[in-house]
Amino acid sequence: MGEGLVKICQFGAGRIGKIHAANVALNPRAVLAHVVDVDEAAAGELAAKHGARASEPEAALGDGAVDAVLIASSTDTHAELVEAAARAGKAIFCEKPIDLDLRRVNEVLDVVEKAGVPFFVGFNRRFDPSFRALHEAVAGGRIGKVELVAITSRDPGLPPLDYIRVSGGLFRDMMIHDLDMARWLMGSEPVKVYAAASILVDKIVAEADDVDSAVVTLKSESGVLCQINNSRRAVYGYDQRIEVFGSAGMARAENVTPTTLEVMDKDGALTDKPLHFFLERYADAYRLELDHFLDCVIDGAAPLTGGEEGRRALELADAALESVKTGKPVKV
Amino acid sequence: MGEGLVKICQFGAGRIGKIHAANVALNPRAVLAHVVDVDEAAAGELAAKHGARASEPEAALGDGAVDAVLIASSTDTHAELVEAAARAGKAIFCEKPIDLDLRRVNEVLDVVEKAGVPFFVGFNRRFDPSFRALHEAVAGGRIGKVELVAITSRDPGLPPLDYIRVSGGLFRDMMIHDLDMARWLMGSEPVKVYAAASILVDKIVAEADDVDSAVVTLKSESGVLCQINNSRRAVYGYDQRIEVFGSAGMARAENVTPTTLEVMDKDGALTDKPLHFFLERYADAYRLELDHFLDCVIDGAAPLTGGEEGRRALELADAALESVKTGKPVKV
Amino acid sequence: MGEGLVKICQFGAGRIGKIHAANVALNPRAVLAHVVDVDEAAAGELAAKHGARASEPEAALGDGAVDAVLIASSTDTHAELVEAAARAGKAIFCEKPIDLDLRRVNEVLDVVEKAGVPFFVGFNRRFDPSFRALHEAVAGGRIGKVELVAITSRDPGLPPLDYIRVSGGLFRDMMIHDLDMARWLMGSEPVKVYAAASILVDKIVAEADDVDSAVVTLKSESGVLCQINNSRRAVYGYDQRIEVFGSAGMARAENVTPTTLEVMDKDGALTDKPLHFFLERYADAYRLELDHFLDCVIDGAAPLTGGEEGRRALELADAALESVKTGKPVKV
Amino acid sequence: MGEGLVKICQFGAGRIGKIHAANVALNPRAVLAHVVDVDEAAAGELAAKHGARASEPEAALGDGAVDAVLIASSTDTHAELVEAAARAGKAIFCEKPIDLDLRRVNEVLDVVEKAGVPFFVGFNRRFDPSFRALHEAVAGGRIGKVELVAITSRDPGLPPLDYIRVSGGLFRDMMIHDLDMARWLMGSEPVKVYAAASILVDKIVAEADDVDSAVVTLKSESGVLCQINNSRRAVYGYDQRIEVFGSAGMARAENVTPTTLEVMDKDGALTDKPLHFFLERYADAYRLELDHFLDCVIDGAAPLTGGEEGRRALELADAALESVKTGKPVKV
Repeated sequence: MGEGLVKICQFGAGRIGKIHAANVALNPRAVLAHVVDVDEAAAGELAAKHGARASEPEAALGDGAVDAVLIASSTDTHAELVEAAARAGKAIFCEKPIDLDLRRVNEVLDVVEKAGVPFFVGFNRRFDPSFRALHEAVAGGRIGKVELVAITSRDPGLPPLDYIRVSGGLFRDMMIHDLDMARWLMGSEPVKVYAAASILVDKIVAEADDVDSAVVTLKSESGVLCQINNSRRAVYGYDQRIEVFGSAGMARAENVTPTTLEVMDKDGALTDKPLHFFLERYADAYRLELDHFLDCVIDGAAPLTGGEEGRRALELADAALESVKTGKPVKV
Repeated sequence: MGEGLVKICQFGAGRIGKIHAANVALNPRAVLAHVVDVDEAAAGELAAKHGARASEPEAALGDGAVDAVLIASSTDTHAELVEAAARAGKAIFCEKPIDLDLRRVNEVLDVVEKAGVPFFVGFNRRFDPSFRALHEAVAGGRIGKVELVAITSRDPGLPPLDYIRVSGGLFRDMMIHDLDMARWLMGSEPVKVYAAASILVDKIVAEADDVDSAVVTLKSESGVLCQINNSRRAVYGYDQRIEVFGSAGMARAENVTPTTLEVMDKDGALTDKPLHFFLERYADAYRLELDHFLDCVIDGAAPLTGGEEGRRALELADAALESVKTGKPVKV
Repeated sequence: MGEGLVKICQFGAGRIGKIHAANVALNPRAVLAHVVDVDEAAAGELAAKHGARASEPEAALGDGAVDAVLIASSTDTHAELVEAAARAGKAIFCEKPIDLDLRRVNEVLDVVEKAGVPFFVGFNRRFDPSFRALHEAVAGGRIGKVELVAITSRDPGLPPLDYIRVSGGLFRDMMIHDLDMARWLMGSEPVKVYAAASILVDKIVAEADDVDSAVVTLKSESGVLCQINNSRRAVYGYDQRIEVFGSAGMARAENVTPTTLEVMDKDGALTDKPLHFFLERYADAYRLELDHFLDCVIDGAAPLTGGEEGRRALELADAALESVKTGKPVKV
Repeated sequence: MGEGLVKICQFGAGRIGKIHAANVALNPRAVLAHVVDVDEAAAGELAAKHGARASEPEAALGDGAVDAVLIASSTDTHAELVEAAARAGKAIFCEKPIDLDLRRVNEVLDVVEKAGVPFFVGFNRRFDPSFRALHEAVAGGRIGKVELVAITSRDPGLPPLDYIRVSGGLFRDMMIHDLDMARWLMGSEPVKVYAAASILVDKIVAEADDVDSAVVTLKSESGVLCQINNSRRAVYGYDQRIEVFGSAGMARAENVTPTTLEVMDKDGALTDKPLHFFLERYADAYRLELDHFLDCVIDGAAPLTGGEEGRRALELADAALESVKTGKPVKV
């Protein structure tokens, strides 16, 4: 990179797009240049707020001043946009997933590799301060050799059926984050996957050929174990906890609450629920992953979550799905 | 029962035997009459301390004044003593397990059934105040319909190889407690068991054809899920936690610590480790299970953990072991 | 002491008396020989349960086999019984307070000193495992030089007016425990006392010329500060917490709860209230203080809380009361 | 207010100034128009970053387009700037304190009152999410009638002597925040103040005629009590906790930590220290108080902390200082 601010072209002006745009505005090293969205009004409004232009895709990617592309549009557009951005020689920040089809992901990664551009996949949880501190403790040897990872990951409520239909299902849409965390924390690659799943929250998910509750067991070649549990509906909020057990101790990151208030009366001591959902819980993570991406763009740092992370997590999600269908463990 | 104190004949004057004898002494409804142990000195000492007699098995069981037998001797003597006590018409408190062989357990239970005597199996965790409060919250509907049970159960350190050899192995010796808790909390019987296991703590366990780390997935007919994880060595102490997730919330019982001290300095805030091992953690449970047993003897209450609980937990442990050997889920 | 068990004569067969008698029964180094109470039935029942005799005071104190006297009778009898026991050459365990009148206390302590017998005053909180761990952390230098002690001490509910009338009032009856803890933890003697008090719980306490809510500030010669707050009614139970702040950190002991259960639902996360009152919270402390007293009797250990502790705490309570009456700080 | 964004002229481009400017930039209802600082470079840099102008005081206050003035310059300039802004008819956001001299504060408040402009004093803690939730619980009656407020407030380290000299001393510089919280939470005005103070951290503070450790007792006409403790040096970070005790329960807000990580090993369970200092702990509060100020400017809302709050807190600080000097309680 030459001197000056990193000029960013962002695809997507929806809920996640607004968060990324605000983080670009706050970051001293970047500036938003273009906003692209099929909803032109949304693109215009977001662009105006941050001093950028609402542009057509071709114009935006064709702008030689643009250094990096931030893809926060709908999932079905990711693969094509990554390829187009790679061919235009731009550094790429792609919201997960790259694609729901593993073959398509491989094609995309080939294109990216040939283009030789920085490629970052937005597995935001790796940037959550508590999970990052957990990883640092584990990687720093604080608990010895890792033996077991236990991940609890529950959404506050079932998404609409229309979303579920296009989401790729619980394993590819929701558990994929946990599978990435498992890989990050186990210290060795999972080679065997067993999944059990149920419809316990709402029978409507059957209409999308999906489940709403699932548990997964992972095992690595060296015998490291992992347990994940998912539910689409935790009435008390977004339940995101990870525990890592090792030969010299245990480390865990609990939920984050909005306040530290405790009220004690004759019924007991009442404290806050966890933060409501991912926008609240991972607000810091979104800010910090952008900063990491800028390290990649400016300083050539290796993306903490690149194409390989996107591919591997999807492979594990596919294996879990196959395990549910066959009722047997699946080798990866 | 007629009036007066319940007269107890206890088999076993070892570590657990001493605990049971002290709880009998504290309980206003019972008195220790006989202590039987192959180690006559130990029997004599314990008997003297609590005003009982050190006796031979036959004499003790033949004493018409004895109402109940408390079996706290070594595991390989349980089955025979239960049968003898049943035939003598005594109420029976049997430390778990009844036997390590399911067929033998069935034989014993037949004898007990024919004798029609109260029969209690010492799954002490059901009497732990925190787990009992957890069960009451769950059974009382506080978290709605149960969807997932997650059990963490880790011993502070690997037992001696000699113990492991006769213990029946991790699943029958250690996880059997967790399998009983799973049955108690899931609200529906597990019908499918998948287990994965590793040797991560010490390769010596291979000499006993055992493992030291294991995870199990249970699923009931109605789709309720359960995850259990076990390790033979948690350097920070006896790690005993259970979480139950349901349609209206989540309930969990955390570890118990010796003190509530917190020391905060420039390194952070340090609090106590969990209580060291089962004698400390389940001291209250031992006291309370005896009281429950006396309810069964005196008032004819149904044992919370009778023969069926002993058999079912062993069936699940056997299934888990088979799953590890075959690499596949096992139907129960 | 010669060989054999310490033979104890206990005065008082009421609520506290039963606790002490049970702890004697459990302790391998002592045995209950006599129980004395003006309520002969109560004395008889307690004596029978533990294999002791219900005796008249003179007979009990005159029994040459008795090594130690445990005074758990009503407050107004303490002074006289201590003197009688001292003159009889017995080791003395006296429930606090020695007396409510400082001059009388001084007389009693003179008699004890002349008799040269071990004298232990039952400030049970020094034996609570959490407060003891706090003291050990502080005394061991974990938080550097002590600068501030903050004590929160609240009863679950107002005692009956009849009790209040004879109790000596909030400062001599309730805060006296906290004043002893302050002395124990400050590391230097308080020389200045300021108290403010209110009637906020129930105006009826005015009829006993007492208050129900109070705060006290202590300061030592070297400038160490202490804050105590008391209330006669915390609806959520017995609130007993202490924090010590020092040059290298902070240590605090929180309340103790009956279970570790947490229930999380859409209203938040609910955990247990503190243990209800002193019998529950300080059950371990009662057991441990007896064991310490036996160290004093058998091994000649110096009582952790002897006559001086009884006198000093009363002096501070009197100073606090005077401060409330005059509205000014009082020098001690 | 007419339509459009609130145009703000900010005095002060230092540490706090940068925070306020960034919060203005993030807020959708305001825009930074002028930055004024005696350090022209600092003013220029901050203005450039946020699209404002670096201006002279007169030009900035004379700009008819400016709606509001945000005073974040050094304490000794506050009074004069408030008066100038009031005379210019601008809404005023003044960092605390208005002035260190109570007479001067009264003069300033007269000027503000005559001008009839919105006047907000930056007691940021009232906007901290945890303390705000505490206040809402208390004000909403969750704990019944308030009987005691206990405030712990400790800085991470002693400020430089040069700062202490001009700060007004511990009571006016540091405890003034706690005195404002006390007033907010007690539910009735304190009428009696007793303070005790020591030099325990560093004798150098004596050179500034100051102390470094202090405790204060407040009492209201109706008997509500309050205890505050302050230290200039808590090695574990910024210790900011408040507890309110009432007739129906207790509510408390604990410290906020950077992460929820817990590491458990053979030494115990280690968790994070509190956030380091006020910039971290009160980051949300700074953002939220600006938003409240805009409510005052745009919608005519009454400032939660206006001139009266500034004056009363200073009166209490002066009373505490007098109490330390005289050794006696002071009536307010």
